[in-house]
Amino acid sequence: MAKSNSKVSETVIRRLPKYHRYLSELLEKNVDRISSQELSGLTGFTASQIRQDLNNFGGFGQQGYGYNVEALRGQIDKILGIDRIYKTIIVGAGRLGSVISMYGGFKESGFDIIALFDKDKDKVGTNVGDIPIYHFDMIEDYIKKYNVEVGIITVPKTGAQSIADIFVKSGIKGIWNFAPTDLIVPEDVVVESVRLNDSLLTLSYYLTEE
Amino acid sequence: MAKSNSKVSETVIRRLPKYHRYLSELLEKNVDRISSQELSGLTGFTASQIRQDLNNFGGFGQQGYGYNVEALRGQIDKILGIDRIYKTIIVGAGRLGSVISMYGGFKESGFDIIALFDKDKDKVGTNVGDIPIYHFDMIEDYIKKYNVEVGIITVPKTGAQSIADIFVKSGIKGIWNFAPTDLIVPEDVVVESVRLNDSLLTLSYYLTEE
Repeated sequence: MAKSNSKVSETVIRRLPKYHRYLSELLEKNVDRISSQELSGLTGFTASQIRQDLNNFGGFGQQGYGYNVEALRGQIDKILGIDRIYKTIIVGAGRLGSVISMYGGFKESGFDIIALFDKDKDKVGTNVGDIPIYHFDMIEDYIKKYNVEVGIITVPKTGAQSIADIFVKSGIKGIWNFAPTDLIVPEDVVVESVRLNDSLLTLSYYLTEE
Repeated sequence: MAKSNSKVSETVIRRLPKYHRYLSELLEKNVDRISSQELSGLTGFTASQIRQDLNNFGGFGQQGYGYNVEALRGQIDKILGIDRIYKTIIVGAGRLGSVISMYGGFKESGFDIIALFDKDKDKVGTNVGDIPIYHFDMIEDYIKKYNVEVGIITVPKTGAQSIADIFVKSGIKGIWNFAPTDLIVPEDVVVESVRLNDSLLTLSYYLTEE
């Protein structure tokens, strides 16, 4: 969720991960430089939109040369904050929590998942991969002790707000929310929600429209 | 992904699932009617935005009365196509595929998952819950035999496009894509992508901005 004091529009910000993704693929293919026209062909954004987007962060292109792929990716990484590591915990050690904790890609993006929490006594004390599962009662102490910065919520809708409240109270600054509900948090806490059901309903809409 | 011949803007369409969610919660609480002002308080959209959004689909509100919650939810369900069932398969019976197949909420939204597909011989022939896992080789025949309309892709990035190609060839009209890549499909096929890593990078951006 965008914070109101953000200077760059949320629409532009949401395009940055896509630039990141395509530039990473170009780097893998050893491409050195790329024009906004070529980037347009890849991303589906118009060339002028691309130039405008990147100007927002201090235009890195050069007339007649295009963009240096590695430099541009480095700049976007910096803007996205990928160049640092966030200590991260997951609350809810069910199937979804386990999938997320096992997926290595999130660590590459800077989110290091160091613990899971659940209230199910059969799960507490076990591991998912090499990540330990602790009891709900430990969340607050753990966050403070290890300076956890990001919390992921994979509990059902009804429990989500109370987990968010514990996060906020304990000093967490960013929440990745998978529960299908809108969380209420103070202005200085960032919530990014993944709404799988909303996404599916959008698919349903376009299928119906045929 | 929006199809270009769509009359209503994608921004409006992406707000509909949120209306659906809030109206469903109001119905659960036995609320009969609601004004656009009250809906604004719930959703965070402005009252005039709400009136405009709903006018797109043929204004259901009444001056001085507001909206009948049940009737409005019914109309939005219809617009979203929730009043019908899509036969759905998942390709990729790993952790993510299993989570999705076990989650009952998608069936309520009209997506009935009837089979999983994988190339891992240890998985083929087993079940996830009561959903059978078949071999990749069977995908095309299965789609045709059972008139499958929607395919969910939970394989890694490298395999995703070839699965999408098989889907298209076999007559699937909607794809829910979890692979972090942009799929190329004909105009009459709808792709809705869930980009977990993009979402996480957005969170990273807002955390960095602090």
